[in-house]
Amino acid sequence: MTNTADYAVQLDCQDELAGFRDEFIIGDSELIYLDGNSLGRLPKRTVEQMRCAVERQWGHRLVRGWNEGWFTAAGRIGAKIAQLIGAEADEVVVTDSTSVNLFKLATAAIQARPERRKVVSDELNFPSDLYVLQGAVRLASPTCQLVLVPSLDGISVSDDSLRTVIDSATALVALTHTSFKSGFVYDMAAVTEMAHRSGALVLWDLCHSVGVMPLQLNSSQVDLAVGCTYKYLNGGPGAPAFLYVRRDLQEQLLSPIWGWFGRRAPFDFKLNYEPALGIERFQAGTPPMLSLLAAEPGIDLVLEAGVQPIRTKSIRQTEYLIALWQEHLEGLGLKLNSPRTTQCRGSHVSFGHADGFRIARALIRDMRVIPDFREPDNLRFGISPLYTTFAEIHQAVNRTRQVIERRLYEQHSGARAQVT
Amino acid sequence: MTNTADYAVQLDCQDELAGFRDEFIIGDSELIYLDGNSLGRLPKRTVEQMRCAVERQWGHRLVRGWNEGWFTAAGRIGAKIAQLIGAEADEVVVTDSTSVNLFKLATAAIQARPERRKVVSDELNFPSDLYVLQGAVRLASPTCQLVLVPSLDGISVSDDSLRTVIDSATALVALTHTSFKSGFVYDMAAVTEMAHRSGALVLWDLCHSVGVMPLQLNSSQVDLAVGCTYKYLNGGPGAPAFLYVRRDLQEQLLSPIWGWFGRRAPFDFKLNYEPALGIERFQAGTPPMLSLLAAEPGIDLVLEAGVQPIRTKSIRQTEYLIALWQEHLEGLGLKLNSPRTTQCRGSHVSFGHADGFRIARALIRDMRVIPDFREPDNLRFGISPLYTTFAEIHQAVNRTRQVIERRLYEQHSGARAQVT
Repeated sequence: MTNTADYAVQLDCQDELAGFRDEFIIGDSELIYLDGNSLGRLPKRTVEQMRCAVERQWGHRLVRGWNEGWFTAAGRIGAKIAQLIGAEADEVVVTDSTSVNLFKLATAAIQARPERRKVVSDELNFPSDLYVLQGAVRLASPTCQLVLVPSLDGISVSDDSLRTVIDSATALVALTHTSFKSGFVYDMAAVTEMAHRSGALVLWDLCHSVGVMPLQLNSSQVDLAVGCTYKYLNGGPGAPAFLYVRRDLQEQLLSPIWGWFGRRAPFDFKLNYEPALGIERFQAGTPPMLSLLAAEPGIDLVLEAGVQPIRTKSIRQTEYLIALWQEHLEGLGLKLNSPRTTQCRGSHVSFGHADGFRIARALIRDMRVIPDFREPDNLRFGISPLYTTFAEIHQAVNRTRQVIERRLYEQHSGARAQVT
Repeated sequence: MTNTADYAVQLDCQDELAGFRDEFIIGDSELIYLDGNSLGRLPKRTVEQMRCAVERQWGHRLVRGWNEGWFTAAGRIGAKIAQLIGAEADEVVVTDSTSVNLFKLATAAIQARPERRKVVSDELNFPSDLYVLQGAVRLASPTCQLVLVPSLDGISVSDDSLRTVIDSATALVALTHTSFKSGFVYDMAAVTEMAHRSGALVLWDLCHSVGVMPLQLNSSQVDLAVGCTYKYLNGGPGAPAFLYVRRDLQEQLLSPIWGWFGRRAPFDFKLNYEPALGIERFQAGTPPMLSLLAAEPGIDLVLEAGVQPIRTKSIRQTEYLIALWQEHLEGLGLKLNSPRTTQCRGSHVSFGHADGFRIARALIRDMRVIPDFREPDNLRFGISPLYTTFAEIHQAVNRTRQVIERRLYEQHSGARAQVT
């Protein structure tokens, strides 16, 4: 009985967050969108916010917009994100991209521990983060090296593996809280404590966590963090990222990019850089205001729903998806590439199949299901509890079963597109 | 006769670019906007472009938007800017902010000349550029220093002054083509040649030039350049900036920020950074797509009008403004803080007055004229030939005269706002 469409509808009826789906533009109601972990849906309020930002603010207020909300937007929106991650309002600012923010904070951290020669990350991290760390290590110190902790199962990294690598030579431990492929989630407080025992700073990438995982950066004693706003925060394509620096560290660290938005009193136009006293010092140039303003309504929605209820629904939905997989898909050769243990798993589930890329393509092109694919074999189903329904999950599993059973994916090429 | 309102109207009637004003949202037709050198007006096409980007692309195409134009937008729009600056399509990309781009290119340049210990700029440069250069110098080399060539008159910098400072120890000469305060314009080809004779690389900031000054980066042998899109290109508040790297230098230089958008084949998700082969290597993280797309229609308009006709009109309008100043404002104590020589002046004119800040405030609040103010005494009147009319210039001078003659500015405080 629990695998019927009726049961899924029943679960949706019991869902206390169900009303939030109406806050989003859905359009084609037959399209099952399971890629909110890559690009979240468009909130209806954002349509209004953008018309206002473009047509009223830019169009009619022109340069006066800077004094009427633009100049303070990065801090105002940062303060909202702070509420989602267990930080104070003056510890978060929205600025630049995740990569640029990671560069700024990693470089600052390495320079703050000049006698130490090691930056630790893991091989499950976003490759994009590893690239930035490789560059920062090379630039900041000729003797510094990046060490990647291996994953024994390709899905998770054990605390023991970390413990053997983090030592008194470690300047910085830079990890992603929720792994982008498997959805594996670290115990943030435990790993932070481990790093601190060695005197290292800790930097968490929250891209796949913020908005869907309860986070307590302050009480976990986290030093530094970065994250994006376009996944579970529904901020729009490439929306500006955020960074967090714990208050007591802010004046000990210096961004390598001495931009005027990070200067004390930038409109004095003095010729020498003096960093601002607070979190502002980690800003760089003029922020892309339209993209920044577009990010705000999605953050408001998460605040209204509450991260804990979102997490509760996310767990129910990923468990439901895994139960359906077990019943319908496991026998068809689809492996579970995500942790089975609930508390070690974020809000997406990865399934492994040698033909995963072609299955994803068949789902997108023929079956009106949008998952995504990550090399080498991960078919990712992202659950975004503010708009994903149980009925969609049920349908997506059905359609995936059809694609595999009927080998519908065989008519698709395995040639990789640039982006999926 | 030449100082009458009728004459101004007559000049507008003879203006071949007059029709372009209809391409912009004007709104309050009594408001005289002379701050297009800070934030350009909103093109009508941008309203449509943004509705499409937000509502159709993000709202309905969702993550598929990346394969339907977003992923290639930075290069596509960069290629359009290349046409405006005398460069090839594969030498320009739109990415990050001007500050971040300057950081990337300056750091790369200093590292490409490791045996040299000097970066040369001037004291008329944007303070924001000087901050970035100070940070880049500090990061890239402990023995490197930034040397600022002085301005003898506060308005311009002589080639002789540059010549005494640029030498065989110089790694990089980083200058702004059109000075943000005085509007002074360097001879790009001559200065570039001077730097090259010493074996230095040259980096031009084009923020106050692009879209209004004819530029020939290739034929001037320019190595590197950065610039913004929100001034004369009308790209919107904080719209992403661009960078130029001459083709033969691209593979000799490495961005310090090893972002995934700068990697060869980023969607292979390999763990080691390998820079892309071309201009793409100077990108960093995921671009703020809404702000990026908003920048495109303004660039198209400049391409349609042509930079040379824009420059011709700009010269007519700044000369007209200066003639009116001479007749009406010079006697009231307003100095000319811009070069009198046409070919040494960009598209804005600065006037100096001890009460310049309060005069600007009175113009904005009481007289419906928007100039801007730059410390210590510069009242800037920006001419944006695609929409500025001769009648507006005539009116602005009249209203400025009233403000000074009647001492209307005295009712305004001199306390500085954050942004003007």
